[in-house]
Amino acid sequence: MSVKLYLAGPDVFLPDAREIGRHKRQMCREAGFEGLFPLDNDDALANDPAAIFATNCAMMRQADLGVFNLTPFRGPGADGGTAFEQGYLFARGKPVFGYTADARPYCQRVPPISTASGPRRDADGLLIEDFGLFDNLMLARAIAESGGTLSAMASADGRTDPAAFDAFAACLDAVAAFLRHRAL
Amino acid sequence: MSVKLYLAGPDVFLPDAREIGRHKRQMCREAGFEGLFPLDNDDALANDPAAIFATNCAMMRQADLGVFNLTPFRGPGADGGTAFEQGYLFARGKPVFGYTADARPYCQRVPPISTASGPRRDADGLLIEDFGLFDNLMLARAIAESGGTLSAMASADGRTDPAAFDAFAACLDAVAAFLRHRAL
Repeated sequence: MSVKLYLAGPDVFLPDAREIGRHKRQMCREAGFEGLFPLDNDDALANDPAAIFATNCAMMRQADLGVFNLTPFRGPGADGGTAFEQGYLFARGKPVFGYTADARPYCQRVPPISTASGPRRDADGLLIEDFGLFDNLMLARAIAESGGTLSAMASADGRTDPAAFDAFAACLDAVAAFLRHRAL
Repeated sequence: MSVKLYLAGPDVFLPDAREIGRHKRQMCREAGFEGLFPLDNDDALANDPAAIFATNCAMMRQADLGVFNLTPFRGPGADGGTAFEQGYLFARGKPVFGYTADARPYCQRVPPISTASGPRRDADGLLIEDFGLFDNLMLARAIAESGGTLSAMASADGRTDPAAFDAFAACLDAVAAFLRHRAL
């Protein structure tokens, strides 16, 4: 039985979502894993959010661990649905691994306003979390606490690839290393 | 023993986070609940993300249910840390309630580009989830599946209040109704 990886991320919203899902599942197979890719865009479920939700939760319960595309989505942080799923899997005691095509720490993703003193804030006065982590501390710490790792890697061509294939490949290597170590 | 509500949200990043936390805990007390407010900005923990993470998770495990401020944060969707916590509490079988000062469905929060046919997409080509839900379906469906409700309410003065006090008050009423119903 292959180890099952739940492949979460905003990939389902990308123009070529189906092809991305196929490619990532193929990369999983080549690494000896089975990739479970959410079915947001499966025709049979496409118009039924309750069915998509139930299917995604069932896949998460089946999975041995989670691999999360945490590349920023419509803002400086990870997609909310992906963050929800990370919390879900973490709460169920599964290791969670992250990857992102944006290698900057969160505090460099949000432009600060200049202030004489005090913590960094954005133009709306909102605090810019500044722990040197890539995103909100709950997401970052869950990865570390669960035994997972974050693979943060800008794309080789310097453009941000929202599917983050380079970082995904690195993340699969990290999962393989984790499993080898655990098996020892 | 009061019912314990975990009060999640990006409130901890607002300029007056401490005062908001005090006010929301006071509103909980007046409704007969105990509000547990994350300690992101507690001085003793302020520089230690691992300690903040552990404290937040311990508070979530203590809580009887979760009340989530899902008002958009730095983009059209909920704060990622808040979404993570929603997934965490949902996975532990706790009812999750949401509230937001932005009463629009998600598909109205993101400007679409004009296309002749096919699903609505934004200027980056990303699919705009269009189920008439207020945010990503995982967040919306978890509320419904857990027995919770969403309280979506623009502020009375027409401006978006990131602390969403009006919607929070409505949400506490919904929690009280839920508990009365469950006790029958």
